[in-house]
Amino acid sequence: MINKRMQGLGEARSVIREIFEYGNRRKREIGADKVFDFSLGNPNVPPPAVVNARIAQLIAGEDQTSVHGYTSAAGAPEVRRAVADYLKNTFSVDMTEDYIYMTCGAAASLTVTLHALLSGGEEVVVIAPYFPEYRVFIEQAGGVCREVGAAEDFHLDLAALDSAIGQNTAAVILNSPNNPTGVVYGEGELRALAALLARKNAEREQPVVLIADEPYRELTYGAQVPQLLALYEHTVVCYSFSKSLSLAGERIGYIAVSPRARGAAQLYAAVCGAGRALGYVCAPALFQRVVASCLGQSSELAFYQTNRDLLYGALTEMGFSCVPPEGAFYLFMQAPEGDAAAFCARAREHELLLVPSDSFGRGGYVRISYCVARETIENSLPAFRALAKSYHL
Amino acid sequence: MINKRMQGLGEARSVIREIFEYGNRRKREIGADKVFDFSLGNPNVPPPAVVNARIAQLIAGEDQTSVHGYTSAAGAPEVRRAVADYLKNTFSVDMTEDYIYMTCGAAASLTVTLHALLSGGEEVVVIAPYFPEYRVFIEQAGGVCREVGAAEDFHLDLAALDSAIGQNTAAVILNSPNNPTGVVYGEGELRALAALLARKNAEREQPVVLIADEPYRELTYGAQVPQLLALYEHTVVCYSFSKSLSLAGERIGYIAVSPRARGAAQLYAAVCGAGRALGYVCAPALFQRVVASCLGQSSELAFYQTNRDLLYGALTEMGFSCVPPEGAFYLFMQAPEGDAAAFCARAREHELLLVPSDSFGRGGYVRISYCVARETIENSLPAFRALAKSYHL
Repeated sequence: MINKRMQGLGEARSVIREIFEYGNRRKREIGADKVFDFSLGNPNVPPPAVVNARIAQLIAGEDQTSVHGYTSAAGAPEVRRAVADYLKNTFSVDMTEDYIYMTCGAAASLTVTLHALLSGGEEVVVIAPYFPEYRVFIEQAGGVCREVGAAEDFHLDLAALDSAIGQNTAAVILNSPNNPTGVVYGEGELRALAALLARKNAEREQPVVLIADEPYRELTYGAQVPQLLALYEHTVVCYSFSKSLSLAGERIGYIAVSPRARGAAQLYAAVCGAGRALGYVCAPALFQRVVASCLGQSSELAFYQTNRDLLYGALTEMGFSCVPPEGAFYLFMQAPEGDAAAFCARAREHELLLVPSDSFGRGGYVRISYCVARETIENSLPAFRALAKSYHL
Repeated sequence: MINKRMQGLGEARSVIREIFEYGNRRKREIGADKVFDFSLGNPNVPPPAVVNARIAQLIAGEDQTSVHGYTSAAGAPEVRRAVADYLKNTFSVDMTEDYIYMTCGAAASLTVTLHALLSGGEEVVVIAPYFPEYRVFIEQAGGVCREVGAAEDFHLDLAALDSAIGQNTAAVILNSPNNPTGVVYGEGELRALAALLARKNAEREQPVVLIADEPYRELTYGAQVPQLLALYEHTVVCYSFSKSLSLAGERIGYIAVSPRARGAAQLYAAVCGAGRALGYVCAPALFQRVVASCLGQSSELAFYQTNRDLLYGALTEMGFSCVPPEGAFYLFMQAPEGDAAAFCARAREHELLLVPSDSFGRGGYVRISYCVARETIENSLPAFRALAKSYHL
């Protein structure tokens, strides 16, 4: 007996992984320096020194049984307290450790939150283009993924959200800085969204929950990322240290439930219950202690900014049209003739590996991950130039 | 909107956790050395030195981006290869890395496996008494938890299994060494079970899958734990390093799908799909590398044997009746008058914290976790003696 949906999810590697695997094969054929792989969003800056220093300190300590032993299901109390204090002091929001749940990274934060909220059949709104795993997570939790297109500049389309959010809407997922567009939502549009939701809530028994998916919060290039906990009371923050501390493989993050949310204590209990039911006994114990002492610190994120400036500058100069990235490490570029797949195929002839935007719920674009070595970008520019030429840009 | 089932699961701490929390309060009241807490199964022997030595080596290496970065969803290829080789060489079974999926510990191994197998409504057989979270995991995956009582000596009751396993049975979970009884199933009874299942399979389209939940495999006191991969072709092993390496908090384990299982490649794909859908992006990267170089090694497990001998010897001498523990670190003891809750209440008057067996799906017993400090056992003996006296044993 095999669950066919799970088999399908396992067999269908994501489009992104497929391109990445092609890139590895191609590198073996013609040499790693001749293939320009912009497919994956894997941080390529090492963690800040404080991470390994803290690990070394922890494994030199006396009580190794408790360093590596179970913590409380929601996380070690001192870790939750540190995260709550950090949020409270940094963003001037209400928060206590009783609303912090440590997780195995962003995907776990999202699946646990969605299972805590949904009972079956409710809609969860996502802003297209969006991270494709949202649909998988929403459907696994029994919900319906409702795509709402972003505005032309890839910021929020409030009118579209107004017509999409109805009695059956349980939550809206906001991802800012955004994967794949690099957009950072501004305070004005977020306040307008909060007002819109408040209006909707007046006609509903249960408020719409805002899920703030924020693994890229610290990766911005001047833009401010407003704290949704301060702007809308029914907010759940899903955070991960994968990008800020370059710990993507270690699976460590947290859920912060707004203490001001309606039924906040019940919602937090449901988060704990969902974590239990999905088999998340506790977040990795060593890394709970590591991140607790690295709050507010980050890898050398300036590296990504230099990459962004270099690539964005060069590509726009060649005549390509890109969304100006305000954060994250993705460039969202228009396919010159509108067909993303055809454009990616032609780019591949120049050994440029780009991800077509279709799997993000929006055609006509490609995603270029610039979390790559500086030389990869520099050496790729002649190939991009030849590609531009072939389109007579 | 809140999922009520999740809220209930979150609010209902397990009976075991409840007792543990009571113990902490009580210790603050009358002193930690006066309370004898036998509730939790948390390893209390430190990991072998090789664990922290390997961590130190990994964080001193050059490429910290890849040490802490994403691995493949199924685990780093070299780690899966090491686990496959270990299983192949140690147990003389077929295994390759294509059937190994690294997980965030035993609970994740089980939830992922159950989601891979079940589509909704199928029965999963558990041998009562059983680890209470089995029911939570089975129901979360859409299955029905079918309890089958163990025989009088807590080994398999093959006649009962024969009548319980029907057309709608998807899987049987076997936990050996057993929590809570400490029983290790022998090769004879397991061969008989395999033969029984083969007989059942002849009348079915899809074979019954045997799920071998083996976090206590290395914790035995002389008994051999037969390898089910060798005895039954449709086996999935759910393993965790929590107990063998005392890494319970680090959440690291694996799933090994028998390559001989019917549709093994599809089942493995479903495991990958279930891991994806539940938000398990990859198992913690650093600890994947750690366990790969500690295969076959273990903490000082002899410590538990001394505890077992001391406690089992003393309690039986006092007149209590216990299942002779062949493995794990639990003693399953009869409540003298049959009512486990009443017995636990009276034990508590003597500051002895025991877990009533009812939540394990079997009344009339208590579980005593002897993964505690030697002094806790030694100092608890007068209290046990007074308790025995109060029952005129």
